[in-house]
Amino acid sequence: MTEYVPPLADIRFALYAQAELSEVARLPGYGDATPELVDSVLDEAGRLAAEVLAPLNHSGDREGCRYDNGVVRSPAGFAEAYARFVEGAWGGLPFDPAHGGQGLPWTLATAVQELWNSANLSFALAPLLTQGGVELLEIHGTPAQQRLFLPKLVTGEWAGTMNLTEPQAGSDVGALKTRAVREGAHYRITGQKIFITWGEHDCAENIVHMVLARLPGAPEGTKGISLFIVPKFLVNEDGSLGARNDLRCVSIESKLGIHAAPTCVMAYGDSEGAIGYLVGRENEGMACMFTMMNNARLGVGVQGLAVAARAYQGARAYARERIQGRAIGSDDTRPVAILQHPDVRRMLTTMRARVEAMRALAYLAAAALDRAKHAPDPAARARAQARLDLLIPVVKSWLTDGGCEVASTALQVHGGMGFIEETGAAQHYRDARITPIYEGTNGIQALDLVSRKLLRDEGAAARDLFGDIRGELGNLETHPDGRVAGLCGDLGAALKTLESATDWVLQAGAGDLCRAAAAATPYQSALGFLLGGWLLARGAAAAAHRLAEGEARNAALLEGKIATARVYVDNILPRAAAEATAATRGADSTLALGDDQL
Amino acid sequence: MTEYVPPLADIRFALYAQAELSEVARLPGYGDATPELVDSVLDEAGRLAAEVLAPLNHSGDREGCRYDNGVVRSPAGFAEAYARFVEGAWGGLPFDPAHGGQGLPWTLATAVQELWNSANLSFALAPLLTQGGVELLEIHGTPAQQRLFLPKLVTGEWAGTMNLTEPQAGSDVGALKTRAVREGAHYRITGQKIFITWGEHDCAENIVHMVLARLPGAPEGTKGISLFIVPKFLVNEDGSLGARNDLRCVSIESKLGIHAAPTCVMAYGDSEGAIGYLVGRENEGMACMFTMMNNARLGVGVQGLAVAARAYQGARAYARERIQGRAIGSDDTRPVAILQHPDVRRMLTTMRARVEAMRALAYLAAAALDRAKHAPDPAARARAQARLDLLIPVVKSWLTDGGCEVASTALQVHGGMGFIEETGAAQHYRDARITPIYEGTNGIQALDLVSRKLLRDEGAAARDLFGDIRGELGNLETHPDGRVAGLCGDLGAALKTLESATDWVLQAGAGDLCRAAAAATPYQSALGFLLGGWLLARGAAAAAHRLAEGEARNAALLEGKIATARVYVDNILPRAAAEATAATRGADSTLALGDDQL
Repeated sequence: MTEYVPPLADIRFALYAQAELSEVARLPGYGDATPELVDSVLDEAGRLAAEVLAPLNHSGDREGCRYDNGVVRSPAGFAEAYARFVEGAWGGLPFDPAHGGQGLPWTLATAVQELWNSANLSFALAPLLTQGGVELLEIHGTPAQQRLFLPKLVTGEWAGTMNLTEPQAGSDVGALKTRAVREGAHYRITGQKIFITWGEHDCAENIVHMVLARLPGAPEGTKGISLFIVPKFLVNEDGSLGARNDLRCVSIESKLGIHAAPTCVMAYGDSEGAIGYLVGRENEGMACMFTMMNNARLGVGVQGLAVAARAYQGARAYARERIQGRAIGSDDTRPVAILQHPDVRRMLTTMRARVEAMRALAYLAAAALDRAKHAPDPAARARAQARLDLLIPVVKSWLTDGGCEVASTALQVHGGMGFIEETGAAQHYRDARITPIYEGTNGIQALDLVSRKLLRDEGAAARDLFGDIRGELGNLETHPDGRVAGLCGDLGAALKTLESATDWVLQAGAGDLCRAAAAATPYQSALGFLLGGWLLARGAAAAAHRLAEGEARNAALLEGKIATARVYVDNILPRAAAEATAATRGADSTLALGDDQL
Repeated sequence: MTEYVPPLADIRFALYAQAELSEVARLPGYGDATPELVDSVLDEAGRLAAEVLAPLNHSGDREGCRYDNGVVRSPAGFAEAYARFVEGAWGGLPFDPAHGGQGLPWTLATAVQELWNSANLSFALAPLLTQGGVELLEIHGTPAQQRLFLPKLVTGEWAGTMNLTEPQAGSDVGALKTRAVREGAHYRITGQKIFITWGEHDCAENIVHMVLARLPGAPEGTKGISLFIVPKFLVNEDGSLGARNDLRCVSIESKLGIHAAPTCVMAYGDSEGAIGYLVGRENEGMACMFTMMNNARLGVGVQGLAVAARAYQGARAYARERIQGRAIGSDDTRPVAILQHPDVRRMLTTMRARVEAMRALAYLAAAALDRAKHAPDPAARARAQARLDLLIPVVKSWLTDGGCEVASTALQVHGGMGFIEETGAAQHYRDARITPIYEGTNGIQALDLVSRKLLRDEGAAARDLFGDIRGELGNLETHPDGRVAGLCGDLGAALKTLESATDWVLQAGAGDLCRAAAAATPYQSALGFLLGGWLLARGAAAAAHRLAEGEARNAALLEGKIATARVYVDNILPRAAAEATAATRGADSTLALGDDQL
């Protein structure tokens, strides 16, 4: 286990050179987000992540959670760390000051989330889910609900959860059966929910469950689902805690990873029915959920990035320390650090390139989210929203697939030690594997991408994005630094490939949605590989500009950004074309096999 | 957990249509390997795998091994299963009848190994390591050593281990420090070995350790290493067990996977020095190890294949059972098995294609091994040996990388359930992850490929292989079945790409070995993707031929082989070009980053 060193210089670079935080900070309401404040937030968050959360990552994994008759005990130290998190008011970073938040940009909050998740993925899930509850109530809660629940959810004194899944209703949320029956001002909720992350624990004094349920006679499917606040302890009018609600954790799962985050089976209403409060209108629960979905999916994408960044850092530290073998092509027979071996170096450079591309893409999506909320011009807001909607499935899937891949490469750098649990590399590999699954599997993301984000607007948002990329590459082609200009040929070719693939998906999907659906996952990956390359080129250009302006202090960092963009274009970008081919040609061949030929 | 159903029809197809077992069976000494015998061996092995080994896979993982003061207890049922394995004389399948073996082809033995490893990877490691010991002694043992050790190792009554690694000597075996001092007819061994798979256990009555050690004054590095037999119990002249030798398991590792296979730290000679017997000549231990290396690496490649095949089977079973969501593009709102969703189907078809390509390549390598041993013509033996030497690093790496990838996709098919340990998908994902590491990391394989297998003969063996592929594709181009002929365009293009990449590696490596080394891993992958496609095309041609001849009984299987080849060419083969680009262009960009820019 190596200690976690927050990569603040890389994070700052991504925020300003790739995600345009300076512009975001000029949006109305974000005036506080000065570079000085951003620095101090990142420094403070980095300290908490490194000093409090990261040291619990391995111990939490080894110890796991304990279930005893409805009570879930988190691993040693977690409750104390959670208290520190609440003390620091970290949960409120991006929320409305009216509800106790700090009103800072989501772009910055996203960078801070990377720190929490790199330090301790299991821990970071608790605030991530609470954040979802806050967003729901900020937009859909009644003033009374907001007054009663928001202040303590924003601070994290109360934790939030999301209750969607049931045994027969996973990706198909519309199949859920949990019942809600009106009883005066509240409802009685009865049913079982599974896979409820942090559904029960000992870190917060109350847990506010957001529960999807179905009213008697409601329409079938997603059009008959309503959303309810179902607190573990009922809350009195004065905000104090009242009676225990009729809900209970029945068991926790034995999982591949995130052992310190309890995954609960929750039973609602075993006795008289759990008391719940309707959020929004009856039968409009799914619409409510959609308002927080982009942010939740961005949050899971950030988890992929975060595990990758942490795993990369661990591998780099190991490669610097581990002495093994002589340098290839040298007469010196003394053993060297394995960092010197070209194959290890290739693993490190490609991990770095992938991590930086993932980071840039996550922050860029967060910037679109900020613009969609705060841009003064409605057209700019709409355009940002469309961009965000298009990016989100790619962010969620490409970053979580990348998280698994980078964690695997990082493990490989460790050789045999990587397979031994004590190094921690194996934990990253295990933890990362949930991220392509939850918050909508990556296959669901791909379907969302082709059906809702491409076919619905007939490719308008995609063409808008491609136009921006084309314009930017056009500018970079004439960049005075030849290393930057030299990136554009391959990126331009990849852009053309994606445009063609997009046309194919639009045509195929118009005729037969199955063909587009069979192409969706590789198409989504191809788009990820293109976007990553585009943003690294943007970063390389910014770095070259700063170097040309004489920024000697960060020369190694900036030179590294230019070199890393090249590594990406040569080593990783070729996968865009491979995935695009798999999408446009592989769809029909994969559908050609009969059920008995699988 | 689904039960294991040995895929015997697919295995037979690969043996005869892709690996040419009919020709192998005609080699001198293999006359017994009639199709009837092959069938009965596969049926029997399949039964043992499915009925005895597979049911212990999940329980063995959950229970793990227990260490208590030098004693290692295997999980419940393992010792009994091992006894069944010994009873069935399975360990002796490919070995010399003079030593109690059955003298059957390695090609068949490789297929049988797939069954053991699919059923229970942890278990199958014990015979795999014993097999290594048998091979060493068959070739390098004295007649007395052979007489004393071989009969019981061949049956498996005694188990074997390989002791190479030490804390400072992993990939760099030459750095090992374990000492051996001559004392009359034997040696005294002192030192510590780590990562010794099945180094201590309760399944066999004796454990015969093959230990690498260094004599006083021996040359540095690999040229000063000698190989010793160091039995747990000394063996009397009459074959009975004598005194306990001075060796001890000090601890076992807590690992990511293969929990039922104890990974031991072994201490030799804590008291008077462990008694060891020299195998081969002093200082020539590495040369001895090389004689079994191809087979051991093939064995680990087969593990990758085997986990993939098992994981695929589990995912397919789940996809058939799990009802979720309505069919895309249908008016029928009833939920369907997830197998019907195009994205799930894509996962299944591409897994299937990858598994079948991996299987064909493993068996083909085994056939080359048989030819290298048994071809009557010395030139044919030499050519087969060169082919085998070239294939082995690709088999080891491409099949183990593929094992991890397929296990990951199989987990994804399970959605949230895949992350829960009880389904078993997570175990495959964990177990598979060791295979790219042990028996030479895949990075070491890649270095072996470019330095020993390409640069040393200046590409002769590679050109010979490419010539064969070109010739075969040339024939297939005019195949009467247009589906077969239609595969050749993309495969021909991939072949050209690999030929160019090979030229690049040869040129780069001649000038600066570092450049070739930085290209080695993606080059190796690219070659794997090409070879897999070539062999599926071969299988498609054979299937089309049999269909044309009216083999109606297997029509679904044979049609499936043709369709699967197309799936591969469209979905998977494009990665050959992506990896080749990463190799030839990525090498220089990855070497451009300084130590401080990683």
